[in-house]
Amino acid sequence: MSDTLRMGIAGLGTVGVGVIKIIEAHGARLEARTGKKLVITAVSARNRDKDRGVDLAGYAWEDDPVSLAQRDDVDVYVELMGGSDGPAKASTEAALNAVKDVVTANKAMLAHHGQALAELAESKGAVIRFEAAVAGGIPVIKALTEGLAANEFSRVMGVMNGTCNYILTRMENAGLPYEEVFKEADALGFLEADPNLDVGGIDAGHKLSLLSSIAFGTKVDFDSVYLEGINRIKIEDIHHAAEMGYRIKLLGTAKMTTDGLSQSMAPCLVPANSPLGQLDGGTNMIVVEGDSVGQIVLRGAGAGEGPTASAVMGDVCDIARGFRISTFGQPASSLSQARSTMSTAATPYYIRMDLHDMPGALAAVASALGDAGVSIDRMSQSRHDDNIAPVLIVTHACTWDALSQAVDSLPQTGFVNGQPVALRIEDV
Amino acid sequence: MSDTLRMGIAGLGTVGVGVIKIIEAHGARLEARTGKKLVITAVSARNRDKDRGVDLAGYAWEDDPVSLAQRDDVDVYVELMGGSDGPAKASTEAALNAVKDVVTANKAMLAHHGQALAELAESKGAVIRFEAAVAGGIPVIKALTEGLAANEFSRVMGVMNGTCNYILTRMENAGLPYEEVFKEADALGFLEADPNLDVGGIDAGHKLSLLSSIAFGTKVDFDSVYLEGINRIKIEDIHHAAEMGYRIKLLGTAKMTTDGLSQSMAPCLVPANSPLGQLDGGTNMIVVEGDSVGQIVLRGAGAGEGPTASAVMGDVCDIARGFRISTFGQPASSLSQARSTMSTAATPYYIRMDLHDMPGALAAVASALGDAGVSIDRMSQSRHDDNIAPVLIVTHACTWDALSQAVDSLPQTGFVNGQPVALRIEDV
Repeated sequence: MSDTLRMGIAGLGTVGVGVIKIIEAHGARLEARTGKKLVITAVSARNRDKDRGVDLAGYAWEDDPVSLAQRDDVDVYVELMGGSDGPAKASTEAALNAVKDVVTANKAMLAHHGQALAELAESKGAVIRFEAAVAGGIPVIKALTEGLAANEFSRVMGVMNGTCNYILTRMENAGLPYEEVFKEADALGFLEADPNLDVGGIDAGHKLSLLSSIAFGTKVDFDSVYLEGINRIKIEDIHHAAEMGYRIKLLGTAKMTTDGLSQSMAPCLVPANSPLGQLDGGTNMIVVEGDSVGQIVLRGAGAGEGPTASAVMGDVCDIARGFRISTFGQPASSLSQARSTMSTAATPYYIRMDLHDMPGALAAVASALGDAGVSIDRMSQSRHDDNIAPVLIVTHACTWDALSQAVDSLPQTGFVNGQPVALRIEDV
Repeated sequence: MSDTLRMGIAGLGTVGVGVIKIIEAHGARLEARTGKKLVITAVSARNRDKDRGVDLAGYAWEDDPVSLAQRDDVDVYVELMGGSDGPAKASTEAALNAVKDVVTANKAMLAHHGQALAELAESKGAVIRFEAAVAGGIPVIKALTEGLAANEFSRVMGVMNGTCNYILTRMENAGLPYEEVFKEADALGFLEADPNLDVGGIDAGHKLSLLSSIAFGTKVDFDSVYLEGINRIKIEDIHHAAEMGYRIKLLGTAKMTTDGLSQSMAPCLVPANSPLGQLDGGTNMIVVEGDSVGQIVLRGAGAGEGPTASAVMGDVCDIARGFRISTFGQPASSLSQARSTMSTAATPYYIRMDLHDMPGALAAVASALGDAGVSIDRMSQSRHDDNIAPVLIVTHACTWDALSQAVDSLPQTGFVNGQPVALRIEDV
């Protein structure tokens, strides 16, 4: 076995540059820890001439990441371009076909093509590692697949999109409406080019689908993730939640139930005094529940040059040490196709609606909920100046099906203005 | 390579029984994840006839753990007896000499003999894994040595003794004095046979010395851990701390500074709204700071059958997967002998003393502190009924040396009754 591990890096944005900086700063440390000299032999990016603050002169340049992935002097292909298809996928496939190991931060690619890529990798005897794809610097993939490998997991939860958590925290702290904080976040460069990837929960949903697969031994099934963004959350919801001892988070939950696998990425109310409820700003948190270990909470920076590069290099170090593990923690052929369900265990819900202030309106709402089998724990109608009254309801625990039926029936009463907002209350 | 990994377990207390239960319950799952059938071939304990709630009939019995460790049908020796020397050390050495891998939960043994055992293991080509020795079910050894391997660490902190955290939390919540809660904890069976291992910080100090080694690449140096127990904490200290926005925790801190390695296991004030400050009851938490990843927080059960067995089995799974890593994350021969220091970066301190209520007393205290170079941020003297006045001081940031000099000089003023209590305020 050679005493050198040669990396080829495609994509020289913040993360790629972070990886180069780690190699430059900590070469001796990494060699002491892994027993191998880690070197970068070649790089690829869209623009060769851009000043990135690092010297690329010592690395071969490839315009085409597919060529980079196939180079004889590359042992590990580090894919940091992003995008579910296109050059990222083509070059990853090229690397695997050339029996190169792959380290990637690309959650979209794995959420859509994880199973096929895992099968390709295993058929070739190569590995795919993707710690950086989920929750930035937090070593959660490693914790689930290795450290906690003896557990049967029942639930994996997390706040995995720092931008959404920043927006919700900022709304709360500054008392600003969603639209205004969204504009701030955009101006600060926090949002993806397509902001719906962030605020629509898609990016976080990609991550959740990967965690589900490794926790439950199921094939990645992003299409079954119930997705709901944060764009309908009002500052009033945040205040109402706070009065009840809760905070609103864009929360990913994956639960294995007797009905199948439930995956949801949606704004939820979590207890303010829980670890998830105490999370502020751009920080990420993953909560894992296993039958032996109980609850494990992991918290750290979910994005950024240093944290993401740390995760990429953790994977590279494992490869340097000769650790070989299946992409999703067990052979791709042994992953099962989980039945997808939303009918998970009953939980309480928070419902906020605008009610026409007319005789019989509250009664009609209460009836609609009762007809759907949803029972009311508390209900309040706030003071209002016009003829639209904000009404807030907390239900007793009910199933998603009952809740959906109730919420769908509310506008049909004729008393409800617009579409109600319903948020799950997740006990953590 | 065989498709079976054969375990020999010495020590059938709660953790050993937990390991047997995991093997019995999750055999198929573990085989899917590791690619190997994990079986127990032989066990050893002090009392063969005790009813442990698991059936031992299928396993060979050894009275002597050394014999167990050397059996031909054992690939991995699982040492769960505890104790820094005696049978634990003898059997571990026997296993390594017979080129068996070792998984242990024994923090005392590794804190005292880690370097020698690591050298022996490496000379034989065997591995020692000890995830269960630190922070129970939390996969922190794995996080530091593997997931975060690309980082240069600056500080590792943690609450690693659930019993102490239980006592401090219970004192706070119930308003009870230390002595009373200590008796409660003893009656509940929370304390070690020698309670000083818990409340004196020794057990937690063992764990900290192991974390220091893997974080900083230094030889385990338990003797240099500054140890201070929680037995002098009064309910008044907890209240004073709370008034200032802090909580008192038995906090382990290991910092690499330009003066050397500082290791301390002592009661400290931490911000009440920090993750460490929010930790209640028997839960453990480790906070790691790396140059790339920033701050990572890991939280979970620090003891108990399931969590500790989960950690043991995580190590066994790694061995089954063929992951080979040096005991402390890099070859034992490459670990450095760190210079030990307490003269770390300056921090503020909380000081509580009983002052004779006489003219000039406060002035004498203030002078003594000033003479030692310790400057006072705030000072208050509580109302009191006799001629002993409780005085509380928060200092500006000062070094440990200055603080020690100040505290040592206080009784010499003739105005201070007994020995003052001084607690570091750790910004986290």
